[in-house]
Amino acid sequence: MEPIPTQMSVIGISRPGGPEVLQPEIRPVPQPGPGELLVKVVAAGVNRPDVAQRSGHYPPPPGASDLPGLEIAGEVVAVGEGATRHAVGAQVMSLVAGGGYAEYCIAADAQAMAVPPGFSMIEAGATPETLMTVWHNVFERGALQAGETLLVHGGSSGIGTMAIQLAKAFGARVVVTVGSAEKAEACLKLGADRAINYKTEDFVTVVKEFTGGRGVELILDMVGGDYIERNYNAAAIEGRIVQIALLDGIKATVNFAKLMTKRLHHTGSTLRPRTNAEKAAMVAAIEAKVLPLLAQGRIKPVIDSTFPLHEAVEAHRRMESSQHIGKIVLTR
Amino acid sequence: MEPIPTQMSVIGISRPGGPEVLQPEIRPVPQPGPGELLVKVVAAGVNRPDVAQRSGHYPPPPGASDLPGLEIAGEVVAVGEGATRHAVGAQVMSLVAGGGYAEYCIAADAQAMAVPPGFSMIEAGATPETLMTVWHNVFERGALQAGETLLVHGGSSGIGTMAIQLAKAFGARVVVTVGSAEKAEACLKLGADRAINYKTEDFVTVVKEFTGGRGVELILDMVGGDYIERNYNAAAIEGRIVQIALLDGIKATVNFAKLMTKRLHHTGSTLRPRTNAEKAAMVAAIEAKVLPLLAQGRIKPVIDSTFPLHEAVEAHRRMESSQHIGKIVLTR
Repeated sequence: MEPIPTQMSVIGISRPGGPEVLQPEIRPVPQPGPGELLVKVVAAGVNRPDVAQRSGHYPPPPGASDLPGLEIAGEVVAVGEGATRHAVGAQVMSLVAGGGYAEYCIAADAQAMAVPPGFSMIEAGATPETLMTVWHNVFERGALQAGETLLVHGGSSGIGTMAIQLAKAFGARVVVTVGSAEKAEACLKLGADRAINYKTEDFVTVVKEFTGGRGVELILDMVGGDYIERNYNAAAIEGRIVQIALLDGIKATVNFAKLMTKRLHHTGSTLRPRTNAEKAAMVAAIEAKVLPLLAQGRIKPVIDSTFPLHEAVEAHRRMESSQHIGKIVLTR
Repeated sequence: MEPIPTQMSVIGISRPGGPEVLQPEIRPVPQPGPGELLVKVVAAGVNRPDVAQRSGHYPPPPGASDLPGLEIAGEVVAVGEGATRHAVGAQVMSLVAGGGYAEYCIAADAQAMAVPPGFSMIEAGATPETLMTVWHNVFERGALQAGETLLVHGGSSGIGTMAIQLAKAFGARVVVTVGSAEKAEACLKLGADRAINYKTEDFVTVVKEFTGGRGVELILDMVGGDYIERNYNAAAIEGRIVQIALLDGIKATVNFAKLMTKRLHHTGSTLRPRTNAEKAAMVAAIEAKVLPLLAQGRIKPVIDSTFPLHEAVEAHRRMESSQHIGKIVLTR
């Protein structure tokens, strides 16, 4: 094995701004602390929070790297004290507290997962963030049951494409909203039962028709804004709505009589500020219940495009174009 | 026992409007159908939904009496086929689908409860609606646990005074908001740990101080409007907010980033449209878990005032003045 260098190339945020503020830098290679792994990064997924962090709207939590990048796949090259789940030489994928846009990155041993058989390192690097987000919000928080109908907004996003596959694998029906015929086609191919083009159809009307007037039991929403009241309209009695982002605006004017008379449950979460213990618990549940489906080849992240790490600017431009279908991944 | 007459005096809603539209009428005495009781009414609680119905904002559900009145206490004078829980001569209290402002009223056998020992008929008539509302929303929907802190808005209302007593009996801490020093005093006397006068104190600030910065685990809100975002501010991480009315307005502009980052759970319910089976299930739970506390004298409704049935206009004026502390009850 080649020796670990002391310095590495990374992509930093030179100042808050557009994609062009992502700039190459040289940083010291970090040292793994207790319970940590040092991973030589092969692939790093690009996520919406990276864009928000770059724009200056989403500062990293205290103690985290200031570099962008929340998920990686690569080879373990050093292990800290007490890190016993993964050994030097193992191929892992992991959510990370930041710093994924780099040649080397620290991961928590308890949060790293073995790369599933049949997965390329690019697929592995595109998996942890969406898998944990979908698992926690759709299954743990949203309690999706077989036979229920799930509505996913942004069906062709990284999270959307993972949500379609996971919900179908667990026996639910899935309706998605998307912004083009091409994206609708991609979602149907992944197993969605109905794809609604929000530019030409009203999702509340279509959902009501699709469910025989009853509405959907669960909604996974990353849009917010005027979607919030429309979600209340599209939900069934006692329906659950899980908010994971608010891309159309954090403030909304809503008729709460609908929440009350339909006995809805509106909740939400963000992944990054969860404690390491909470993330490790999610990983343990995923290893038990979901990784077998990945190992069987039944679920794979949809890869939109890959960019070499030094072209992170282009990767962010692609994400902000919203033309992508599935995940955008940085490679070494 | 005196014979059941064919006609009875009732208070009807002559047209949508102010308290003065409540007018005496003569109606036929109803006949109990299968599973129903005919109750000779001794006391009927006055509730906010009666006021909304009188104003024309809350039409009775299909099949229900058009007369106001959602809870009664009295003597069973006839039983329908299959009604086996309560016999002629029994003293019962019950939620009813409407028609409580009358000399006789139909109650579902499965929803009627024996008047607890030590309760006057006036206290019994003031109990079912608040008891079922608080039980369902605070304990079943809100899942209040011993050691948690509950914030109750409208602490001196019928629902508020019942919520204080029930939450304390089950080991929770209780903070309330009220509109006067007199109301604060009444809530503290009932066991509230802290009463916030919303005219002189900001409830978010006080709640944060009271909980050491953590916020409250559960909020029971009947106010809505700008309280919704303030509830999000006052709630703990993973806090639950249960909406049971929207007296300050059904629409509100809210920052949903707080719902998401604090992982809050916002839900709500209304009691009247629930099915008879759902109401019977609530009654069964209450009979098992709460009525013993009432029988021990540990919980009693707070009676603000009583009015003879023919003075229902005055009873509604009292409720709309918002000067009352506890329940307003109509008597024969």
